[in-house]
Amino acid sequence: MDELLNPLIQGDRRALSRAITLIESTRPDHRARAVALLSSLPDRQALRIGMSGTPGVGKSTFIEAFGTMLTEAGLKVAVLAVDPSSTRSGGSILGDKTRMELLSRNPNAFIRPTPSSAQLGGVARRTREAIRLCEAAGYDVVLIETVGVGQSETLVAEMCDLFVLLLAPAGGDELQGVKRGIMEMADLILVNKADGDLLSTARRTVADYAGALRLLRKRPQDPERFPKALAVSALTGDGMRKAWDEMQELADWRREHGHFDGNRAEQSRHWFMAELRAGLLARLETHAAKAHLEDLGERVASGDTSPADAAHQMLDWLQDQGRK
Amino acid sequence: MDELLNPLIQGDRRALSRAITLIESTRPDHRARAVALLSSLPDRQALRIGMSGTPGVGKSTFIEAFGTMLTEAGLKVAVLAVDPSSTRSGGSILGDKTRMELLSRNPNAFIRPTPSSAQLGGVARRTREAIRLCEAAGYDVVLIETVGVGQSETLVAEMCDLFVLLLAPAGGDELQGVKRGIMEMADLILVNKADGDLLSTARRTVADYAGALRLLRKRPQDPERFPKALAVSALTGDGMRKAWDEMQELADWRREHGHFDGNRAEQSRHWFMAELRAGLLARLETHAAKAHLEDLGERVASGDTSPADAAHQMLDWLQDQGRK
Repeated sequence: MDELLNPLIQGDRRALSRAITLIESTRPDHRARAVALLSSLPDRQALRIGMSGTPGVGKSTFIEAFGTMLTEAGLKVAVLAVDPSSTRSGGSILGDKTRMELLSRNPNAFIRPTPSSAQLGGVARRTREAIRLCEAAGYDVVLIETVGVGQSETLVAEMCDLFVLLLAPAGGDELQGVKRGIMEMADLILVNKADGDLLSTARRTVADYAGALRLLRKRPQDPERFPKALAVSALTGDGMRKAWDEMQELADWRREHGHFDGNRAEQSRHWFMAELRAGLLARLETHAAKAHLEDLGERVASGDTSPADAAHQMLDWLQDQGRK
Repeated sequence: MDELLNPLIQGDRRALSRAITLIESTRPDHRARAVALLSSLPDRQALRIGMSGTPGVGKSTFIEAFGTMLTEAGLKVAVLAVDPSSTRSGGSILGDKTRMELLSRNPNAFIRPTPSSAQLGGVARRTREAIRLCEAAGYDVVLIETVGVGQSETLVAEMCDLFVLLLAPAGGDELQGVKRGIMEMADLILVNKADGDLLSTARRTVADYAGALRLLRKRPQDPERFPKALAVSALTGDGMRKAWDEMQELADWRREHGHFDGNRAEQSRHWFMAELRAGLLARLETHAAKAHLEDLGERVASGDTSPADAAHQMLDWLQDQGRK
């Protein structure tokens, strides 16, 4: 049994942190240990909430306030981040230590930045596994934060129970360029900064989005009134409790109607196939395979071997390697 | 040696037709025979011309006139089609027997419709192999026709030496909704129907596109003046000879500067990797693999096995199958 397992289950944050570092490693021995650890985890369930919002909507402030509110209600909260852009910028959306200062010092909260230099596929697997580690460590709510770039939203939606879109108050009826696909993933749209001078703008924005949401096709996993739009203020706290109530109501309804477990089962199947395809293609990534590929590639380029023939030779070679 | 090989090399159209039917078959024994036949083909080279144009631009009429002109110049012409929409419609762009009636009766021309009920990936492989069969049968020019839907253009461009975009005269300066990506693939834009009442509109359209093409980044595989736009009339024959001269000039320039062979080498590498990936994933498609996948999928969905664990089990199972 892994030495991390017991402290992890007891909710030790250092053990959780080390376990996440373990699953983030690409070293084969680390990977083997990670797989073994993951399959020995107890079956605990948190509410997995995906949260997206473009820069400027006050996402950090919202998560800080929302997370603090949940801990005050006696819940343990973990915050993970999926930021595909961090591979390019070298930075990461939760990397700035000064962000969420209050929440990061809270003993009932756990904040983990996106690992830098990771590919989107790798980020997905690691985040999914990090969610399971947080659940095993007894966290009640896992927030998965992402930026508004489409592809990462889809990824996050595929690992969450609820998906929340955070928006800023917008003047007039402009819909802030939110892609229809992202709108369709949202269970709840929260218009932040509904305070001070922006209050009336925020209310108008809520009405605009409520109207847009009504035009979307009703989904079987939604009760009446969902998806819906609400105004919140991370600054004053207005609407925060209401937002959490709505999330719980939706989650409860889905649990009662079988959509909650059904969704998780579908997500698991999806990840199984994704892992399997990745595993098959990983066979081309070994040192020996790359050398053989290089060689065959040259013969194909020079016309000595046809692409189909070379592919057959490579497949046979892989099969032979498996026999050894 | 395959019985089709000799008549094929001698240019027998029935043998060519039968050979294409062979490569289109998915039966394992047919596939094995196809791979053997393809690797025994002599090394002959045709000029591979990709040709795209949305319905209504007069593509059939153009190909009929263009192909007839080439045969009159002593060249043998093959016409293939890539139509991903045929999987949905059940039809095929060259399926209509009344199309290209003149060319289809021409002993120096060979016309082959898209097979219906094929997936885009499958269409690509079969078309690529059909091109090689046409080359082996002594055809000088292989025209690969496709419809204007983006994905199929990319596919066709990846198997051609030249890519020609056929357009209709458009009123005003509207650019007929041609996607930038398709514009960037085009070596030559031909504005058809430059005759009668449409002549001046066609000339204006040519000027519009010539302007748009100048805004595109110059590619290393292009000499000065390319990519370019020309007016043609499949009806009167005006500009047809000029269009062919331009194609030859571009092909000659690329041959002289090493881009022609370089491009084919790159295409071969690309198809090698595509075949290889398809071959790896095909291991999941056997009857036994599907049954095992189904079983593991159920265990993943019920939570008995983690997605990563199930993927490992499936990979091990595939490895074991290889050992047998």
